[in-house]
Amino acid sequence: MRTSELISRGKKSWEWAASHMAIINTIISENIAESPLKGLKLGLSLHITKETSVLIIALIRLGSKVSLCSANPLSVQEDIAAFLSSRGVKVYAWKDETKKEYFNNLSHVLSDRPQILTDDGSDLHVMAHNEKILGILGGTEETTSGIARLKALEKDAKLLYPVIGVNNANTKHLFDNRYGTGQSTLYGIIRLTNVLIAGKHIVVCGYGYVGKGVASRARGLGANVTVVEVDPVKAIEAYMEGYDVKRINQVVDMADIFITCTGQKNVITAQHFRRMKNGVILANAGHFDNEIDVKKLCVETDKNYTIKPYLDCFNIHGRKIYLLCRGRVVNLVGAEGNPPEVMAMSFANQLLSILYISRNHRKMQKKVYLVPEKIDLKIANLFLKHLGIKIDKLTQLQRKYARSY
Amino acid sequence: MRTSELISRGKKSWEWAASHMAIINTIISENIAESPLKGLKLGLSLHITKETSVLIIALIRLGSKVSLCSANPLSVQEDIAAFLSSRGVKVYAWKDETKKEYFNNLSHVLSDRPQILTDDGSDLHVMAHNEKILGILGGTEETTSGIARLKALEKDAKLLYPVIGVNNANTKHLFDNRYGTGQSTLYGIIRLTNVLIAGKHIVVCGYGYVGKGVASRARGLGANVTVVEVDPVKAIEAYMEGYDVKRINQVVDMADIFITCTGQKNVITAQHFRRMKNGVILANAGHFDNEIDVKKLCVETDKNYTIKPYLDCFNIHGRKIYLLCRGRVVNLVGAEGNPPEVMAMSFANQLLSILYISRNHRKMQKKVYLVPEKIDLKIANLFLKHLGIKIDKLTQLQRKYARSY
Amino acid sequence: MRTSELISRGKKSWEWAASHMAIINTIISENIAESPLKGLKLGLSLHITKETSVLIIALIRLGSKVSLCSANPLSVQEDIAAFLSSRGVKVYAWKDETKKEYFNNLSHVLSDRPQILTDDGSDLHVMAHNEKILGILGGTEETTSGIARLKALEKDAKLLYPVIGVNNANTKHLFDNRYGTGQSTLYGIIRLTNVLIAGKHIVVCGYGYVGKGVASRARGLGANVTVVEVDPVKAIEAYMEGYDVKRINQVVDMADIFITCTGQKNVITAQHFRRMKNGVILANAGHFDNEIDVKKLCVETDKNYTIKPYLDCFNIHGRKIYLLCRGRVVNLVGAEGNPPEVMAMSFANQLLSILYISRNHRKMQKKVYLVPEKIDLKIANLFLKHLGIKIDKLTQLQRKYARSY
Amino acid sequence: MRTSELISRGKKSWEWAASHMAIINTIISENIAESPLKGLKLGLSLHITKETSVLIIALIRLGSKVSLCSANPLSVQEDIAAFLSSRGVKVYAWKDETKKEYFNNLSHVLSDRPQILTDDGSDLHVMAHNEKILGILGGTEETTSGIARLKALEKDAKLLYPVIGVNNANTKHLFDNRYGTGQSTLYGIIRLTNVLIAGKHIVVCGYGYVGKGVASRARGLGANVTVVEVDPVKAIEAYMEGYDVKRINQVVDMADIFITCTGQKNVITAQHFRRMKNGVILANAGHFDNEIDVKKLCVETDKNYTIKPYLDCFNIHGRKIYLLCRGRVVNLVGAEGNPPEVMAMSFANQLLSILYISRNHRKMQKKVYLVPEKIDLKIANLFLKHLGIKIDKLTQLQRKYARSY
Repeated sequence: MRTSELISRGKKSWEWAASHMAIINTIISENIAESPLKGLKLGLSLHITKETSVLIIALIRLGSKVSLCSANPLSVQEDIAAFLSSRGVKVYAWKDETKKEYFNNLSHVLSDRPQILTDDGSDLHVMAHNEKILGILGGTEETTSGIARLKALEKDAKLLYPVIGVNNANTKHLFDNRYGTGQSTLYGIIRLTNVLIAGKHIVVCGYGYVGKGVASRARGLGANVTVVEVDPVKAIEAYMEGYDVKRINQVVDMADIFITCTGQKNVITAQHFRRMKNGVILANAGHFDNEIDVKKLCVETDKNYTIKPYLDCFNIHGRKIYLLCRGRVVNLVGAEGNPPEVMAMSFANQLLSILYISRNHRKMQKKVYLVPEKIDLKIANLFLKHLGIKIDKLTQLQRKYARSY
Repeated sequence: MRTSELISRGKKSWEWAASHMAIINTIISENIAESPLKGLKLGLSLHITKETSVLIIALIRLGSKVSLCSANPLSVQEDIAAFLSSRGVKVYAWKDETKKEYFNNLSHVLSDRPQILTDDGSDLHVMAHNEKILGILGGTEETTSGIARLKALEKDAKLLYPVIGVNNANTKHLFDNRYGTGQSTLYGIIRLTNVLIAGKHIVVCGYGYVGKGVASRARGLGANVTVVEVDPVKAIEAYMEGYDVKRINQVVDMADIFITCTGQKNVITAQHFRRMKNGVILANAGHFDNEIDVKKLCVETDKNYTIKPYLDCFNIHGRKIYLLCRGRVVNLVGAEGNPPEVMAMSFANQLLSILYISRNHRKMQKKVYLVPEKIDLKIANLFLKHLGIKIDKLTQLQRKYARSY
Repeated sequence: MRTSELISRGKKSWEWAASHMAIINTIISENIAESPLKGLKLGLSLHITKETSVLIIALIRLGSKVSLCSANPLSVQEDIAAFLSSRGVKVYAWKDETKKEYFNNLSHVLSDRPQILTDDGSDLHVMAHNEKILGILGGTEETTSGIARLKALEKDAKLLYPVIGVNNANTKHLFDNRYGTGQSTLYGIIRLTNVLIAGKHIVVCGYGYVGKGVASRARGLGANVTVVEVDPVKAIEAYMEGYDVKRINQVVDMADIFITCTGQKNVITAQHFRRMKNGVILANAGHFDNEIDVKKLCVETDKNYTIKPYLDCFNIHGRKIYLLCRGRVVNLVGAEGNPPEVMAMSFANQLLSILYISRNHRKMQKKVYLVPEKIDLKIANLFLKHLGIKIDKLTQLQRKYARSY
Repeated sequence: MRTSELISRGKKSWEWAASHMAIINTIISENIAESPLKGLKLGLSLHITKETSVLIIALIRLGSKVSLCSANPLSVQEDIAAFLSSRGVKVYAWKDETKKEYFNNLSHVLSDRPQILTDDGSDLHVMAHNEKILGILGGTEETTSGIARLKALEKDAKLLYPVIGVNNANTKHLFDNRYGTGQSTLYGIIRLTNVLIAGKHIVVCGYGYVGKGVASRARGLGANVTVVEVDPVKAIEAYMEGYDVKRINQVVDMADIFITCTGQKNVITAQHFRRMKNGVILANAGHFDNEIDVKKLCVETDKNYTIKPYLDCFNIHGRKIYLLCRGRVVNLVGAEGNPPEVMAMSFANQLLSILYISRNHRKMQKKVYLVPEKIDLKIANLFLKHLGIKIDKLTQLQRKYARSY
């Protein structure tokens, strides 16, 4: 496709997403008069989707200059990249990067000397730390996985600047991780395979917010769900929802589909591949491509071939294992990522956190912060307002009662 | 894409579908020795999908010659058409036919002098009747809508040959219409729009098996569902499932998404368009493109434009209405049609009905037949067998008890 | 409790039920002017609950004389029996009848020379046939189990009078069997045991309308449901709903609760008892107490004791099996039977069928009839009307379209 | 009933509950050798149910002396009270206490000079503070409502001893509040009314853990649920689950059943009563009887009468409002309280918290503590063990990965 066509298609996608992310527009309107990000250089590593374009255009409109790379080598939507490029964003990203290209692109972003880093998975943050990049005022991080890495840095007293862990906002993890990833993960699997979900025996590994969402949507489409967990409280939660709760070894030879949502590595590995049913499908909903041990899968396999992009078949002792998206995050690589409605809340948290850092970085310490409660609440109220949903308010008497004994 | 590439892609899709439709293979194996369809000419009007290719290759392997057109001007998957062509099928179909081309293609099929007609929607049957085509031994029909038309012909004593109404088999309508169309309709909507289903107010028009499936999957993805019905018993069924049951006029200005599943025409029309919310999405899951009055929508609209293929925006008095697939069946035009697992049962009914007609047409009358119970049961047992599901059997004592008083 | 107190309590219960069964009142109003049942003697064998009292008072108000016994030795609600007695009904029933008393009471009803018999389970019909009772104009039967017995009589040409099989009405089996028995069966189990349903592994034997309702409500309360079936189509239905589908022997040692809904005998028997988990609970939702082989359970058991009425513990090889209601229908014996809202539809079918027989018996043959479609439809419309639910009507154009080809 | 019969019935109920609360037995076994509570006097205000008896017998077996009153004037199960009395517990409680009697009974408990107070709602704690009772080493509190009151005391620096807020344990509020109260609240409503839940329009006020459970179980039984909230994040959660989210005034005239789960007062009041539908049912799932403004209901009403115990009818301008349990907590007054399986976890938290206080009170401050994480985790593991559920463990490599960056 020609660039002009790509740009035009990207622009339409941005408009479509923006029309479902009205919160962002409201935040722009409230802030644009003072150009709060004027002159600020931002470095972003995000999944380059139409929803992301809404955040980035907002950042530009509030005055900043943006350098952008992709948070995943396979998740770039090229029309969006072209569109953002046409709007002055420095885009270092294309579809199907090699690992080397991927890290090179992170480097390019850092070379632009960004003052605030916004990351998804913390590869950019970790590189900034490894390379001791100077001049960074603060950062934000989108994911559970990424925040864990930053907390590890903080614990070892190696964190070089304040970071706001966006994932911990209620208006982020309660909705994006659960309802967003729940829907888009199942949609990614259907898009790549067109299999019927009803009746399928699906194993969901991990019952955090992503796992809860995936399990709920799988069941909502008629699947028979088993949950694998390592945390006893989460295991009881899954049990009480009526899911089968088992060790992975107890179901490995019975399941039709496995979906990993753990943030851990080596969740499904060689010992499991050998025992799986013929025709089993493997998908990963987590950030990194190490939840399913893809390398071992390649080693164990007689021969493999591609049925269509991101749907690969591995023959192992006469049985077929279908791997989606080479073990990379299925909703972003195999589909279009999370729906705009939830990304509106997640990116409102990003946007307001970036604004917060730009205004308050001098007062902040080198640690991982929660999104300020006020921001979280503001976003919740905006979301309801744009939906036209009105809720009750406590009366003065009730407020008093809540504080009485 | 070059033809050879199309054929290769189509072949891979056929293999993928076939591996999820093992029933068809079993039926081939049981019958191939006697080449039961040897020399028989078949005329088929079906949605040309990878699942359909599995049926057609089976018909060829059992000895028949096949002429094929599409049951819908927009639903042809071109790689499948190319692949079938390469296997000797006379294919009169391409993606995005005009109405005129569509009917011309039906004509071409009839010109090949088919002896058995297999149809989806009965356009081919009705044309065969209008043009008084001779030499037809019998036919089959896939859909509720199509069977209704054939019954009307039968009632007026105008039916020219016996037809088996495949839709009425338990192993067809209970699964294809409900679980197949339920999933693929929602998937089609998500694929075209990427909107979040959770929380959306969705109006499902019609609560037959398709409507039941669509409502259930919409709810399973978190939607808030209202059902519109004209049949009081079905209305009570929807009510007891906890859906809101209302007249369409009572919800027309509150809903986010409308999905028609009625087999009727003019279900959503001018009076409704005028009152809809800004941003509303309209999709049709029924066979014909008259459930939503698309012509009126064009007339009522200031200007319209295309966001991406099959996602059109109509501006009406300052509000936007998004129409999917120009009002044509959303799961086939906007996505890939029903999953192979349910189509395995539906097409096993087609295949065994065609075999049945080829063997019994002399004894059959000019009426609409049910699928013989024995065929229905055989397919159910095969389906369970291929899943590895074992069920109990009545003991002799229990059989006797069932007949006692 | 003194009789006057019982009557007063029964009257309040009748009023409560009647206020939730407004359909019945409407039918009375429409018919009372002509006293259509004047002088007619009716013999009824029903579960004597508050909902039944609403039917019986209606029959009296329309002119008939009623003799009444219980359709189950354990299901009589004594306050209702006392109240009906005080209104002139000949009641031959009390709580906790022996089997002998139960059959004696059926005899007493027949001794009163009823002209129309209304039965639940067909024990009264079968006795009337065995004893060749004369003067019966026709009858009605409430249940699937009872209709099967009458069909067996019809098949052997032994049926002595026309019977309307009420269960086959849409407004009966779609709602009473599914939503009514679904709720009341789970409620009966909770009432007797107070166990948490969430997380429990529940085996539902039989996936007819009762089984569908029970499985759905069990899952709705958080259970992990396995379905046992003998019919392959129903087995696939259960599979597509995401239930585990297995042979009973495959789950007998893993389940926490078994619920039989089959209409068959010996569904759970000695070979199963021996393999069950310690603490397992057994309940029957079917009409007769032979689905669980209670006799064998007594024989197999070292010692048993009663925890509270209708909750008995059987010790078998050191493990405990809890049997509810001695294997009799758990929603009627252990709780109060089906909710008034569904019984309103079921008993409207009874009432209008009795009226239909009284008016048309001369034209009817000695066979099992369906409820006339007109009655079914009328009841559906009345139900919606009393709920205040309005539904759409087909336009003339749409009616015409439905008949076109 | 005679006392000996009551005791015998209570004993059987205790045994039944204990057999479903094996965790408690394990904790006894692990601690009984050292009689850790020897000589300690405990004052408990709890709902006197069979599940509570399991906790109390455990406390006795571990050496303590127990004085007991009821946490609610209407929730005492008299057989349990009799049984506990027979085991040496000083029981100051009976069914249907007046408010005065209720507070007198609290007084009696405090007169026995307890050293640790275990409360449900904090009436006992507040009285101990008001009356400046000496010698209290610490306390525990079961509920959200009660903890709020203690936090208010703490905030004003008035708290006199350390308290462990049991509700905040994961193994308490995630299960007891949600799955326990969810099931038992619906069961209480069904037990008192026998209405069909399927299709009913139910308004759930409050979407905390109790509200989440109630809404989920109501939907699981087929209800059409609207959620009323004051917290925007919880409102979005309810919206994303597909519930209608509205202000109470927007649905007050459309709903069939209202259930309050807020911990607030005056949630449903005079302005609402006047607009409700004829036949509406009101139930409260919260601790105190002030969520529904019962006093106003009495004032507004022409005349009222009792249909059966805990089901009262209020006539208001010709329409009927049915109030359950006089506005008191419906699962405990109208039914038997939460199922033993969840109370096993809740009371294991109580038991281990009491043990913790007895051992650590010297080191504790006058504040509200969380249940120590170790206790929470231990209970979760015990729960899974008794269910026979095995879960995976992180490998050493995975543990390391979780701490890496």
